[in-house]
Amino acid sequence: MPESTTTQTRPGGRSARVRASVHRAVEELLAEESAETLTLPVVASRAGVHPTTLYRRWGSVGELLSDVATSRFSGDIVVPDTGSLRADLERWATDVATDLADPDSLAVMRAAIGAGPDGGCACTTDRHAQLAAMLERERSRGGSAPEVGRAADALLGPLYYRAIFTDTGVKPGWVKELVAALLD
Amino acid sequence: MPESTTTQTRPGGRSARVRASVHRAVEELLAEESAETLTLPVVASRAGVHPTTLYRRWGSVGELLSDVATSRFSGDIVVPDTGSLRADLERWATDVATDLADPDSLAVMRAAIGAGPDGGCACTTDRHAQLAAMLERERSRGGSAPEVGRAADALLGPLYYRAIFTDTGVKPGWVKELVAALLD
Repeated sequence: MPESTTTQTRPGGRSARVRASVHRAVEELLAEESAETLTLPVVASRAGVHPTTLYRRWGSVGELLSDVATSRFSGDIVVPDTGSLRADLERWATDVATDLADPDSLAVMRAAIGAGPDGGCACTTDRHAQLAAMLERERSRGGSAPEVGRAADALLGPLYYRAIFTDTGVKPGWVKELVAALLD
Repeated sequence: MPESTTTQTRPGGRSARVRASVHRAVEELLAEESAETLTLPVVASRAGVHPTTLYRRWGSVGELLSDVATSRFSGDIVVPDTGSLRADLERWATDVATDLADPDSLAVMRAAIGAGPDGGCACTTDRHAQLAAMLERERSRGGSAPEVGRAADALLGPLYYRAIFTDTGVKPGWVKELVAALLD
């Protein structure tokens, strides 16, 4: 049965609703159980969508998880604008640390990483862009700022390393120390 | 059929051989295809072992992947002893970076992370202990050395962050810059 004629006439609104309900289903399932059990049919059933739709739109669990991670970790943190690079970085890195302490965020992140090489980047591309924007703003008002790669090493490196690779909790004051180690 | 009487009389040599062949099967399968397809029956078939053995010994893919990661990322890197903390850290961090540039290492690491909260720690517990040992040796010969948490933030943080969360390659000289940022 030809399928393209029917799918192409769907309005964008429905398409966006399907995407939202599929993303929500993935996040719910990951919060409830191990990523091992996540398959496209299981997600389809939870989202109330036909499995064919998921296979056609995402192709694999890996593609779906990258899409979920990109949307979950984009635009969720506001870039502060305090007038001081140090205060901006401290506030922003604290928000990143808070998100990384959320078990549901970590479940999405771990599943996306587990699904393939693109999953990790999906979690951090927006964070990297936000960091670059704060550094660039400091330069544009005449201040000096470290190069973005160095800043990512000094801030995103420890934040994500501790969240994914250790069971070390984040102590109050630690984020300020990271910013100080970068700027001083 | 009672099974415990037969399994408990197996000699340790056979048990170690089973573990080695199961670990090798996991590494081969992860090098060949996505972690999504990894199940205990698939691993059992590749290793030439009865699936029941895997269920009894590891219980789940997550437990098995943590075990594989622990053994893959322990004892594989030699702690250097050059007499200088800086040279030790530069050599050791270069070895860690080299391992993190190996696609097969990354496949094991990503799969272990994807399988649950313990997977990340399984990849780095030995690295952390090695780092602590180098710092402690410097102190024991009268030198000063940073606290191990700070050293992990400055070295392991960026190394693992770049490997898992970015597609940034590692430039020559970068590892020395990380060590310098920690010690200077």
